[in-house]
Amino acid sequence: SRGGGGKKMQEYPKVKLHVNKMDISFPSQLFIDGLFCDATSGKKLKSIDPKDESVICEVEAASKEDVDRACKAAYRAFNDGEWGKMNARDRSTMLFKLADLMEEHQEELATIESIDSGAVYTLALKTHIGMSIATWRYFAGWCDKIEGSTIPINNARPNRNLALTRKYPIGVCGLITPWNYPLMMLSWKMAACLAAGNTVVIKPAQVSPLTALKFAELSVLAGIPPGVINVLPGTGRVCGQAIADHPLVRKLGFTGSTEIGHTIMRSCADSNLKKCSLELGGKSPLIFFADCDMEKAIKNALGSVFFNKGENCIAAGRLFVEETIYDEFLDRVVTETKKMKIGDPLDRSVQHGPQNHKAHLDKLVEYCETGLKEGARLLLGGKRCDMKGLYMEPTIFCDVEDNMFIAKEESFGPIMVVTKFNAGDVEGVVKRANNTEYGLASGVFTKDINKALYVSEHLDAGTCFVNIYNKTDVAAPFGGFKESGFGKDLGREALNEYLKTKTITFEYSI
Amino acid sequence: SRGGGGKKMQEYPKVKLHVNKMDISFPSQLFIDGLFCDATSGKKLKSIDPKDESVICEVEAASKEDVDRACKAAYRAFNDGEWGKMNARDRSTMLFKLADLMEEHQEELATIESIDSGAVYTLALKTHIGMSIATWRYFAGWCDKIEGSTIPINNARPNRNLALTRKYPIGVCGLITPWNYPLMMLSWKMAACLAAGNTVVIKPAQVSPLTALKFAELSVLAGIPPGVINVLPGTGRVCGQAIADHPLVRKLGFTGSTEIGHTIMRSCADSNLKKCSLELGGKSPLIFFADCDMEKAIKNALGSVFFNKGENCIAAGRLFVEETIYDEFLDRVVTETKKMKIGDPLDRSVQHGPQNHKAHLDKLVEYCETGLKEGARLLLGGKRCDMKGLYMEPTIFCDVEDNMFIAKEESFGPIMVVTKFNAGDVEGVVKRANNTEYGLASGVFTKDINKALYVSEHLDAGTCFVNIYNKTDVAAPFGGFKESGFGKDLGREALNEYLKTKTITFEYSI
Amino acid sequence: SRGGGGKKMQEYPKVKLHVNKMDISFPSQLFIDGLFCDATSGKKLKSIDPKDESVICEVEAASKEDVDRACKAAYRAFNDGEWGKMNARDRSTMLFKLADLMEEHQEELATIESIDSGAVYTLALKTHIGMSIATWRYFAGWCDKIEGSTIPINNARPNRNLALTRKYPIGVCGLITPWNYPLMMLSWKMAACLAAGNTVVIKPAQVSPLTALKFAELSVLAGIPPGVINVLPGTGRVCGQAIADHPLVRKLGFTGSTEIGHTIMRSCADSNLKKCSLELGGKSPLIFFADCDMEKAIKNALGSVFFNKGENCIAAGRLFVEETIYDEFLDRVVTETKKMKIGDPLDRSVQHGPQNHKAHLDKLVEYCETGLKEGARLLLGGKRCDMKGLYMEPTIFCDVEDNMFIAKEESFGPIMVVTKFNAGDVEGVVKRANNTEYGLASGVFTKDINKALYVSEHLDAGTCFVNIYNKTDVAAPFGGFKESGFGKDLGREALNEYLKTKTITFEYSI
Amino acid sequence: SRGGGGKKMQEYPKVKLHVNKMDISFPSQLFIDGLFCDATSGKKLKSIDPKDESVICEVEAASKEDVDRACKAAYRAFNDGEWGKMNARDRSTMLFKLADLMEEHQEELATIESIDSGAVYTLALKTHIGMSIATWRYFAGWCDKIEGSTIPINNARPNRNLALTRKYPIGVCGLITPWNYPLMMLSWKMAACLAAGNTVVIKPAQVSPLTALKFAELSVLAGIPPGVINVLPGTGRVCGQAIADHPLVRKLGFTGSTEIGHTIMRSCADSNLKKCSLELGGKSPLIFFADCDMEKAIKNALGSVFFNKGENCIAAGRLFVEETIYDEFLDRVVTETKKMKIGDPLDRSVQHGPQNHKAHLDKLVEYCETGLKEGARLLLGGKRCDMKGLYMEPTIFCDVEDNMFIAKEESFGPIMVVTKFNAGDVEGVVKRANNTEYGLASGVFTKDINKALYVSEHLDAGTCFVNIYNKTDVAAPFGGFKESGFGKDLGREALNEYLKTKTITFEYSI
Repeated sequence: SRGGGGKKMQEYPKVKLHVNKMDISFPSQLFIDGLFCDATSGKKLKSIDPKDESVICEVEAASKEDVDRACKAAYRAFNDGEWGKMNARDRSTMLFKLADLMEEHQEELATIESIDSGAVYTLALKTHIGMSIATWRYFAGWCDKIEGSTIPINNARPNRNLALTRKYPIGVCGLITPWNYPLMMLSWKMAACLAAGNTVVIKPAQVSPLTALKFAELSVLAGIPPGVINVLPGTGRVCGQAIADHPLVRKLGFTGSTEIGHTIMRSCADSNLKKCSLELGGKSPLIFFADCDMEKAIKNALGSVFFNKGENCIAAGRLFVEETIYDEFLDRVVTETKKMKIGDPLDRSVQHGPQNHKAHLDKLVEYCETGLKEGARLLLGGKRCDMKGLYMEPTIFCDVEDNMFIAKEESFGPIMVVTKFNAGDVEGVVKRANNTEYGLASGVFTKDINKALYVSEHLDAGTCFVNIYNKTDVAAPFGGFKESGFGKDLGREALNEYLKTKTITFEYSI
Repeated sequence: SRGGGGKKMQEYPKVKLHVNKMDISFPSQLFIDGLFCDATSGKKLKSIDPKDESVICEVEAASKEDVDRACKAAYRAFNDGEWGKMNARDRSTMLFKLADLMEEHQEELATIESIDSGAVYTLALKTHIGMSIATWRYFAGWCDKIEGSTIPINNARPNRNLALTRKYPIGVCGLITPWNYPLMMLSWKMAACLAAGNTVVIKPAQVSPLTALKFAELSVLAGIPPGVINVLPGTGRVCGQAIADHPLVRKLGFTGSTEIGHTIMRSCADSNLKKCSLELGGKSPLIFFADCDMEKAIKNALGSVFFNKGENCIAAGRLFVEETIYDEFLDRVVTETKKMKIGDPLDRSVQHGPQNHKAHLDKLVEYCETGLKEGARLLLGGKRCDMKGLYMEPTIFCDVEDNMFIAKEESFGPIMVVTKFNAGDVEGVVKRANNTEYGLASGVFTKDINKALYVSEHLDAGTCFVNIYNKTDVAAPFGGFKESGFGKDLGREALNEYLKTKTITFEYSI
Repeated sequence: SRGGGGKKMQEYPKVKLHVNKMDISFPSQLFIDGLFCDATSGKKLKSIDPKDESVICEVEAASKEDVDRACKAAYRAFNDGEWGKMNARDRSTMLFKLADLMEEHQEELATIESIDSGAVYTLALKTHIGMSIATWRYFAGWCDKIEGSTIPINNARPNRNLALTRKYPIGVCGLITPWNYPLMMLSWKMAACLAAGNTVVIKPAQVSPLTALKFAELSVLAGIPPGVINVLPGTGRVCGQAIADHPLVRKLGFTGSTEIGHTIMRSCADSNLKKCSLELGGKSPLIFFADCDMEKAIKNALGSVFFNKGENCIAAGRLFVEETIYDEFLDRVVTETKKMKIGDPLDRSVQHGPQNHKAHLDKLVEYCETGLKEGARLLLGGKRCDMKGLYMEPTIFCDVEDNMFIAKEESFGPIMVVTKFNAGDVEGVVKRANNTEYGLASGVFTKDINKALYVSEHLDAGTCFVNIYNKTDVAAPFGGFKESGFGKDLGREALNEYLKTKTITFEYSI
Repeated sequence: SRGGGGKKMQEYPKVKLHVNKMDISFPSQLFIDGLFCDATSGKKLKSIDPKDESVICEVEAASKEDVDRACKAAYRAFNDGEWGKMNARDRSTMLFKLADLMEEHQEELATIESIDSGAVYTLALKTHIGMSIATWRYFAGWCDKIEGSTIPINNARPNRNLALTRKYPIGVCGLITPWNYPLMMLSWKMAACLAAGNTVVIKPAQVSPLTALKFAELSVLAGIPPGVINVLPGTGRVCGQAIADHPLVRKLGFTGSTEIGHTIMRSCADSNLKKCSLELGGKSPLIFFADCDMEKAIKNALGSVFFNKGENCIAAGRLFVEETIYDEFLDRVVTETKKMKIGDPLDRSVQHGPQNHKAHLDKLVEYCETGLKEGARLLLGGKRCDMKGLYMEPTIFCDVEDNMFIAKEESFGPIMVVTKFNAGDVEGVVKRANNTEYGLASGVFTKDINKALYVSEHLDAGTCFVNIYNKTDVAAPFGGFKESGFGKDLGREALNEYLKTKTITFEYSI
């Protein structure tokens, strides 16, 4: 079988835990060239469970030398290995196999994700892991459907010409992904990257690397050849930087903050002119017109902000509510938010888990303090929960002015920022919504088809939801405008991020 | 009519010359917001005719303030003006009108190009100007054919979803183009850019800005609204840098050297995370197998190197000749090259004109000296012509080793670099050809379909010519791999460089 | 020039008239192989002006022998002539030229169309002729953008494979078009057909062939080579049948009635298995919900039925009105319809001209009688106008039951058929709307985005208009479902009707 | 699970055999609406094993009433059932599941195919069954990638428009498939048909229906809902005709002879104007130039004719050999053909099995007699093998003239027809090759890239192989030109055969 043939599988130490009523295990070492191994740095990262701040385990932290070794392995796998010679259809089969293995281990993966990132288990199972699997399947189906063109160029008469393009993988790709949806962000990028035929060196988020390591283990079982996938936990400063700088890496895919986005792109420029795609911060506007379906609006208002504890790149950062329903809206979101059960993310009845890590929680508390200082009206929450673990109270600010810090900057936490707009002022609210350097997502609730189509046409963001929110799909391209970055994950377009086009022109005559 | 309606056309000073048996005229000022105007810098650039180093005229040199004004004009034209509201089909009509005007003025444009850049007039007419016109027509035809997708996403049953993408122009685009094909490089980028609906601020090459200014004049006649096209001659350091830095510019298209490519991309990163596309240097390999059609091979060997005085980004920088035909090949290229007539580019019988500017010529002479020093065998040329004007002798080096400077670095001049490869060693020569950080173009001559298909599959460059060279076409995507950059000019793919995709997802139920 | 070079243009008799304050002229002979000529049949068709039933002129009526000659000319033009060898881009230029010539002659064409078909001149200018020109330009822009694919097939390792598709024109195409929009129907089909590179034999409508002949004249001026376009007025029984039967014709494009559609397709089957596309009858439902914008609804209700005297294949054949607005709706459509000015189609203030020809008018009168007999309530009109010319009163029936003849069969005239549906019964009215063997067009008026999206998703017709009607566009594919036919005119998809795909698979190794 | 949930699986009689060293079983009844059932006709077909003319079993033969019941079941499944409401991605999962089940049963399926059709088991396993599985996987991957367009139409300013297309399944599709590759032909059509979301009524070949019934059984295990797939063995005259006539069937996919193609298309025309696609007969030319790789040429010459006993729609029907290698070519094909082992198709060492059925074998013998009569030179074979079973000798005719019956008509058996062409006459041989009403496949062997590209460009057939033959791939569109039919199986294009496009146009304003 492709899963290694007669080759003996590597034996390596695994972290083994009994948690969430099941046995789970995962590696804690770097994964380079098909093998788990210690970092040359001798450094380790502590992986913390945010619900009680206990240490789950220690994970090897990759050094620059480790990155170099991984990039070279990826380069060999691309140029000399079986992967680069394989038929696209066989690659497809292999990626489907990987998705099947992920599905077999979905409860285990969701449990690891939950303890590592604080994601509520039920959500982790459905979204973090469920959408990851769907992503692998979607892109696995693309492998043998990546077509180039034949092009009717002017013939050099009396000679004839044949011009065609072929799509090739770019080579070694570096991926750097964030901690909010650790496995899903890995999958969004890596599935397209591998479907296109590249090899990859990925640095998962420093604070939540565990599912990426479990994934590496599954990739061996799926028979992905050594060197095709390399997983290097580590810090951004050392490991991330080394990937962005490496001369064998030809493409860099990054999801993270706009601030780090600048650094990444600069490193791509300075090193070897890597092609890069950036999915960065957002402060996504969500507009509620008075004629909306109130029930659905309130439900989605909560989801747009509190989904995954607000650790959601497309979380609605600014809610614009038409003045005629403003008071009712506030009443109802407060009422509904109070109903959310906060607690152990493994508890199936809990809806709100702990924030990912301590530094982030601190930042959120500070963010709320800023909001208060600049005069926003706090309706709910605003501080750390009075309980063990990194819990932040679901928070609601209203009467927020456009020029306030909390109206302009992303919190990445469970903080709703509500502002009012003049009744009937469609153009005005759209203009306010667009008055930002971000352009990741946006949304509008209205029953009126005129408003819905006008607003969705004019909101200047890569995604716009109409009468729904957070409805991403593996087939729909996802990515931002302006300083929310460029390049797309998901959908057919994501493949283009990991392909290069060669034009071949023949001349002939008889 | 669209050509300005009842509005009075601006009166502005024009350079008027009688040359090439015709009257020609063109502006010499900056073109901002639909008007020709002086630079705020008070600085001017001298435009030199390379055939005798005489000054053709002085041209205004844009300052940072001028760039700012142009970007703001482009921003207004995009957001508030007629251009942004126009139907795609009307935009198409306008661009066709522009192409028609360029065709009406093709002799004048070719003459200006010839005196400003040293291009042989016959070539300028056919290629510099002719392909420019074809480019505008090709992309004009795309305007109303730029389609997004409707996507079968998972429905949130029992509700239904409709997901679609729409392609939007990005906004204000900055373009920085080189001096080798001044109008053609402008057209390759700007036609796609405008077809997609953007507005533009362009810095044409500092040393050859004249056709860009003439083009600006024609764009007014075509009725392109003010602010849509802004043309700013200037230096890279001041004007180019200001464009790359400007916060209203969301996309940067650059053609130039790899060295400057790094700077440009870094500025895009540091400023506002501009999306960028880079068409940079090359050192394109061209392989001649012993079984090729020798007649055609020799003809194309010359063309691959000496076309447009070697000032050609896809010029073949390394010719690999199979050893069994090596001597014959050298004999024949020397013989044929000696037949090339050198002289006044306006003379219809001349095939080889002066290099674009003095600094470039000096660099070429030095390049040849380096070649000699490192032991390459000089068969022809190697120095400046003994005549008035910036003429470089068509030069042929042979016995060049892969590790020599002249085997690795681009000359961008009429310098043929020939090397030998072992008979029958197809894989070996491909490996040598790919051993470079560049990946712009490549070529192969052979009658054997197996070699032709194998080599064209494996040469790692954005373009590969088979039994022909320099056969670009406006419908065929063009752009490099590795440090030759990323992003495409020409073809359907070029449009993507100037578009952004918005995903809109509706949810509904009755 | 391409317009025939030094060749002397043919001299041929023209019909010359002074009408609509201008001189107009057009041929009245068959157009075969680049020349106007008499029919071998010796038969002629009388072309009648429906506004007074006067004879405009006589037109040659093609025989089977004429069709054979035309098909052979088209075959030669395709296989041996310049057309088949021409670069796609040159074909594009030629079709743009043709569009320009049509625009130059647009008033003349509109006048001819008006007298020949009874179309109101203002409408003829904007729609019949205006959209024809837009169609030619749209498809002219496609010529050099028709791309095939390169396909990642499984390699026969260790060998390699290259698989690609190329799109070819099919060859000689036969077109048979109707009398309601004579030039526009010709253009919808022929522009895509020629853009794809085919040659064509067209039979324009027997009763309105004049603009097709004028068009043939313009095609000569545009330089379209002889044999590429052949225009054969004649009867369906003789000329149309001969085209559908001819062994050199490989594709048949037909627009007309469903009844004749069966015959045409059968002939395609019996002869040489011609590929065919059929745009046939319709009985398009249009649904008005109570929450619609009433002003716009009424305006479009009239337009949906009375546009071009109801001689409109997508005319709304069944208007479903929600019961809560039913009475108001009827009042207002009656009031507005009464305001329509009936009269000489050349009079700029007239909105309603004569029906195309006598037999059609008679059928409409009979249709109304049937409606009355089966108990529909006649609110307006219902009979021939009491004036000279083939005028039918704009007619409104209400209280129509689904099982009535006038609810099921197409009238193709100015007869509005209104029925009521239960308040709020969205699913019910959609089911009723779909209960027909036709599926050409459909429409819905509502402000509610849920209803709009649900209904437009579920109406089983090739076109659905939402809060608008008759809004076709040259870029949007047009064609029916069920017995309204198959195949598309317009848009990118129309090209596929006139192309065939060849797959070429190479195997190679070194 | 989706395989019927808690529902009890149907119990039905199965044919059980021990053959090819394994136990096999399969149904022998009609499969309608998810259940196996007897035909209302009371008629049965005998299924014969061609290797000894023994009866394998009897199979129910569908009547017109059975077809009607199946079509109604398919209609309900499409309109009211789960299938029509299912997300495309879930449909994809289901089709992958079906492919997995086919793979699990591949030896059983191959054995059934072998005894039912005479296919050599090794070939059946790799091609008949192997490619079937690949086809299901390829199209399963398309389900959630079938996208429509958003189209930049002219806005009705000041209003705005949104125009989009959505791709819908057509509804109930009828499929009629041939006996040469029973399961593969079913798969080529049905996989695309179901991926697009349709439901299907299929009549497998009368003489080889067994794998289709086994497939029906597997489809139940895969959880495909009742009514989605209906399999009706029967005669063409009764069952096939009833499908082609049925008013609920909206699309007919047929593979078979050109003669029956006429009938099928006529029935589509006469009934309800079904859209149809036809893959019909061929007489595919294969050209050998003197400069070809002789080893590979001979091997492929045999394969092009004798693959699957010549029961291969793309079998090369005419071999054109350049005169300079003509004699050598004949010597070698005769020598190699003699080496082919004829015998029991289940014997792994056998290369040539029995013809599918008696009537076909008789036709082949007669075909050879005709060839002899008209003067072709018989080099090998030409008659039935002197052994039990329906074996035809591999046959080679040379010196065949273009006007002979055996040069013009398809044999569909192991009969090589060789003709000579003048040395160097590339254009001449292409013209001869194209001189046929068929246009299914073609091929050329040459090392010369000029000849290869010229000939592959000019051969007028839907498929052209270069230096290989029979290299079809599930991703590469397959279908004929001229009277070989229209419409494509396989590849992205095949989906279009089973989709309809709806254009939806919105108008809006605020």
